[in-house]
Amino acid sequence: MLSAGVVGGTGYTGVELLRLLVMHPQVELQCVTSRSNVGTKVAEMFPILREHTDIAFTEPDDAALGGCDIVFFATPNGTAMTMVPALLERGARIVDLAADFRLTDVAEWQHWYGIEHACPDVLSEAVYGLPEINRGAIADARIVANPGCYPTAVTLGFLPLIEEGLIDDQHLIADAKSGVSGAGRGANVATLLCEASENFKPYAVDGHRHLPEIRQTLGAVAGHAVGLTFVPHLLPMIRGIEASLYAVLESTNVDVHLLYSQRYEAERFVDVLPVGSMPETRTVRGVNMCRIAVFKPQGKDTVVVSAVIDNLVKGAAGQAVQNMNIMFGLTEDAGLRNVALLP
Amino acid sequence: MLSAGVVGGTGYTGVELLRLLVMHPQVELQCVTSRSNVGTKVAEMFPILREHTDIAFTEPDDAALGGCDIVFFATPNGTAMTMVPALLERGARIVDLAADFRLTDVAEWQHWYGIEHACPDVLSEAVYGLPEINRGAIADARIVANPGCYPTAVTLGFLPLIEEGLIDDQHLIADAKSGVSGAGRGANVATLLCEASENFKPYAVDGHRHLPEIRQTLGAVAGHAVGLTFVPHLLPMIRGIEASLYAVLESTNVDVHLLYSQRYEAERFVDVLPVGSMPETRTVRGVNMCRIAVFKPQGKDTVVVSAVIDNLVKGAAGQAVQNMNIMFGLTEDAGLRNVALLP
Amino acid sequence: MLSAGVVGGTGYTGVELLRLLVMHPQVELQCVTSRSNVGTKVAEMFPILREHTDIAFTEPDDAALGGCDIVFFATPNGTAMTMVPALLERGARIVDLAADFRLTDVAEWQHWYGIEHACPDVLSEAVYGLPEINRGAIADARIVANPGCYPTAVTLGFLPLIEEGLIDDQHLIADAKSGVSGAGRGANVATLLCEASENFKPYAVDGHRHLPEIRQTLGAVAGHAVGLTFVPHLLPMIRGIEASLYAVLESTNVDVHLLYSQRYEAERFVDVLPVGSMPETRTVRGVNMCRIAVFKPQGKDTVVVSAVIDNLVKGAAGQAVQNMNIMFGLTEDAGLRNVALLP
Amino acid sequence: MLSAGVVGGTGYTGVELLRLLVMHPQVELQCVTSRSNVGTKVAEMFPILREHTDIAFTEPDDAALGGCDIVFFATPNGTAMTMVPALLERGARIVDLAADFRLTDVAEWQHWYGIEHACPDVLSEAVYGLPEINRGAIADARIVANPGCYPTAVTLGFLPLIEEGLIDDQHLIADAKSGVSGAGRGANVATLLCEASENFKPYAVDGHRHLPEIRQTLGAVAGHAVGLTFVPHLLPMIRGIEASLYAVLESTNVDVHLLYSQRYEAERFVDVLPVGSMPETRTVRGVNMCRIAVFKPQGKDTVVVSAVIDNLVKGAAGQAVQNMNIMFGLTEDAGLRNVALLP
Repeated sequence: MLSAGVVGGTGYTGVELLRLLVMHPQVELQCVTSRSNVGTKVAEMFPILREHTDIAFTEPDDAALGGCDIVFFATPNGTAMTMVPALLERGARIVDLAADFRLTDVAEWQHWYGIEHACPDVLSEAVYGLPEINRGAIADARIVANPGCYPTAVTLGFLPLIEEGLIDDQHLIADAKSGVSGAGRGANVATLLCEASENFKPYAVDGHRHLPEIRQTLGAVAGHAVGLTFVPHLLPMIRGIEASLYAVLESTNVDVHLLYSQRYEAERFVDVLPVGSMPETRTVRGVNMCRIAVFKPQGKDTVVVSAVIDNLVKGAAGQAVQNMNIMFGLTEDAGLRNVALLP
Repeated sequence: MLSAGVVGGTGYTGVELLRLLVMHPQVELQCVTSRSNVGTKVAEMFPILREHTDIAFTEPDDAALGGCDIVFFATPNGTAMTMVPALLERGARIVDLAADFRLTDVAEWQHWYGIEHACPDVLSEAVYGLPEINRGAIADARIVANPGCYPTAVTLGFLPLIEEGLIDDQHLIADAKSGVSGAGRGANVATLLCEASENFKPYAVDGHRHLPEIRQTLGAVAGHAVGLTFVPHLLPMIRGIEASLYAVLESTNVDVHLLYSQRYEAERFVDVLPVGSMPETRTVRGVNMCRIAVFKPQGKDTVVVSAVIDNLVKGAAGQAVQNMNIMFGLTEDAGLRNVALLP
Repeated sequence: MLSAGVVGGTGYTGVELLRLLVMHPQVELQCVTSRSNVGTKVAEMFPILREHTDIAFTEPDDAALGGCDIVFFATPNGTAMTMVPALLERGARIVDLAADFRLTDVAEWQHWYGIEHACPDVLSEAVYGLPEINRGAIADARIVANPGCYPTAVTLGFLPLIEEGLIDDQHLIADAKSGVSGAGRGANVATLLCEASENFKPYAVDGHRHLPEIRQTLGAVAGHAVGLTFVPHLLPMIRGIEASLYAVLESTNVDVHLLYSQRYEAERFVDVLPVGSMPETRTVRGVNMCRIAVFKPQGKDTVVVSAVIDNLVKGAAGQAVQNMNIMFGLTEDAGLRNVALLP
Repeated sequence: MLSAGVVGGTGYTGVELLRLLVMHPQVELQCVTSRSNVGTKVAEMFPILREHTDIAFTEPDDAALGGCDIVFFATPNGTAMTMVPALLERGARIVDLAADFRLTDVAEWQHWYGIEHACPDVLSEAVYGLPEINRGAIADARIVANPGCYPTAVTLGFLPLIEEGLIDDQHLIADAKSGVSGAGRGANVATLLCEASENFKPYAVDGHRHLPEIRQTLGAVAGHAVGLTFVPHLLPMIRGIEASLYAVLESTNVDVHLLYSQRYEAERFVDVLPVGSMPETRTVRGVNMCRIAVFKPQGKDTVVVSAVIDNLVKGAAGQAVQNMNIMFGLTEDAGLRNVALLP
């Protein structure tokens, strides 16, 4: 039985993590911290947990957290980096669901996040937690940087083509769409039901923080910098990301469906759909899965990939649990075998 | 390990039942029938099942179904009654999720459903599968009539007041609202997204088929016929029923919250909320639970009860699994311990 | 041409009022005030107005507002009462869309709104702006208190029965449901898309501020205090209120459909539907209309009324324009003849 | 006063056209035909029209329709072409909202629509009704082919770049998203609320009927065939299309915002947003408008255009009315000046 701590369990990523952890057969939820809710029962804030845990929020405390086998940070960007060094020293292992340890280049990180990094040394040790490319390193990591939601979908979607060097990687297009839960549980006019439902729009066209993260991973795979246009859009729904990816093939002869099927054959949480099937976000709602389809429309030289995930699961809390399973040698899908809701 | 058969697994109730059964640790899904989809993999029609079952739809067949320990009917009204007698003879036990065995009075049944009943003798043997009032009889039943969705919420909501004889039961008001999944997966203009979203309306004010079902159960509890006005409404969302119930108390002195808390204390799937809390349908989405609050607004003599369920779970497939668990002596919440999605 | 001023044009009621006023052929929009947005073009905040007005937000200013023929307050409760006396003195006439002048009893107002009333004398002069009962007084009023959204639907729904004294008015039930826009444009966790969509719940069961408002109007019509249980619910959609009303008839002989048809025959903005038709909120989306149906289900002694309005139009801005039209002797439907969107 | 006939007024395009026509000050609705609803009042099927027209559906009749100044076809593909020749002979002018007259190449039309064209000669006379490129020809046309919804957004979005020859037009990418109303009012499992809400997916990746239509128009502008990858997606909402367009600029020096602003300066129904603003579909809901923004993200050589329309208005019925206004010399925005609903 692993003892787990969660720092910042009051956002959507946090509560999704709690949902997965209370159902995980090999995890005991030790503490959930929230400065502003100390003493409140977790199930009072989130009635979905009423039958499942009696735990209350506590102050973040180095001793209590440091005594856990695994500590998850589901905090705003910039929080984990101030607490992680002390917890590592006490022997806890860490999965950070925020962005503090995602970019390996400190200057780049500081450019996009607008603050100074509190522990560059830990940053240099952190492993980027995308199991499909880093499984081995994750197993040994003390600290895992859980990928962003868009980067998970876009990276898994482009990966086989980049690995094989089959496309013009200087003009990659990622047209991504996310449900509103990606924007978090903060009070915000733009994400009110009255603003975001019956509406659709692109945003952050000039530069989203997930752009350098995707470029970093794909560039490392390619062995050189890639050129990527990444346009996120806001969907009028709660959960789900769909990324439609476009690139020009160097040759139209490649069997792209076969390429993807073979690349992901052994991956428990990547599902390449049969020829002719299109991914739908609802088929991954609530589950740790990325479903992918790949096409050459009209037999032309432009390849189209569509990848879907639940932004809160494979794009956040589910992937965090998957990383934990790998770090502690559990079956990779332990606690992650539930079926998506339909409808 | 119980072997289970599902007749009619292509509607929303059917696929929800499949979702619960493939996750149930003591059930083996033996066969799923659908005349019009013989040979099609269940997971091809419902991609949420891709990682969970390889089974294909088969013809309904007495021998195959009759060899199962338990057979569920998730068919349109009028189908189960033609097949059940043969299956009972072969030794299978039955849970019918349709309405064929819900009304004990054959004439009343024929009046509301507009067809002749095919097996009145089996009807007279069937047990109404609301565990909170019939647990003992369900355990011994060969055939269980799984309650309707509205009747589950309305009956559990009124039950303690009727049992104790505390209200004017000749003027009960049930203002109920259901998500669109209650209308099923049939192609139908009225339930298109463009018709049912951003819209709200009452329907069937003059008489819904669930009215006699509720009256039958509450009348049996009261020991005499009750007077009930039942108005269903269509909610612009997928899952969830909320029933707001109104009645005039004989006396304003009763502590209604205490009454409900005590009545349902031992019930695993009825949750009486703390004073001041209001039920929300999303807290039961995907789970087998009825959450209830009860009030005397302004301290007056009108009592208000609000009960929420997921119409496809406690209102259909989940309750069916709960009944199966009772029938076969399994833990009542086996396979029913998952946590609701939030958000 | 009437010159109009709008105080507080940045909420949903405000922008709906702007939408109606820029389309009104006899109104010139003179000024729109918002302390926190002075200098910003109205169409920059609300791009729907880009082709329709070039006006910018200004400071609330007595001289500018007082020079308008009509000033609308679309401000939070408690603001209008501090500004209205000065504007009346300058000769402007007022429609307050907030609650400052809705309750005639100062003590009752202070009890429900929790602050002292700033101008009880003006309060005593104000006319409750429900044209269907107060048309004459509205025509002559200097200040009109525009009714709340729920009170408009519930009052119009019960009115004919109360006027004729046909029901037990001590046990009225109003089960009302509102779209989320009723909660306003403030940043608020409870009205985020992720909290309010795919969800339904009752709220304020113990006492909503619209309760005394409805009781006041119905009590005045009845000639004595009425007993009302009013339970509002939150719908997962943007616009629309449906109120399902229940009461026990003194006699089952009354032809309720005829009663309603005759009562509202001459009313341009109340539509009694043909027998058998049910109102849907979408049929009044964006338009100044209340559609009503009335039933005696199963021929019993309980009467059921369903009334729908758009909470932002007949429940707020549209009714305000209707009141302005009456006050200035314009055709009552001037600027209010557009057709609802479908779908 | 123009007399107008509508053939096929029972779909979403049809009812939207009726909504616009009953509000048009210079149009008299003469007849609305529907074989299967003869005798039914239009307002009985669509209660939004209750206060606005008393007309009933009639049989399609050459004499009655041919006597109208203008006849709109809001029928399924393949119907208009069988009726148009006779109506032209009687002197009526035609706007076809279906696809019968959109492709100038008969063989191409037959390939994509799978049936033989009934009147190739009329096809060769038809004018493609996109006023922003064909205003002059529309004014003189006897028959106008109203553009498809996706083609309207995609064509207006790419137009200035193609006209000026600034991009690699062999690798155009159009990632388009549409609300469900684009799929029509037919009973269909895929567009049920329970299937299409809380879900997002691409479809028809291998070839949508709007692809050849866009290629035809852009190719004519370019003076040679263009290469286009067009991927439509289904949005979980009722109305609205957003098209995100991607192309590689021949030179990064061009001021794309200035280019678009100048190109559309005189266009009443194309709105180029200020620098930094992003289009949202809700800002065009219910109105005849295309809003556009254009970017060079990160200053690179990939240009990104986002164009939004209401698929039923500028993408169908509104553009049809705009075309009628041009054909009959009315002010181009007559009957098209209403303001979008917000929220």
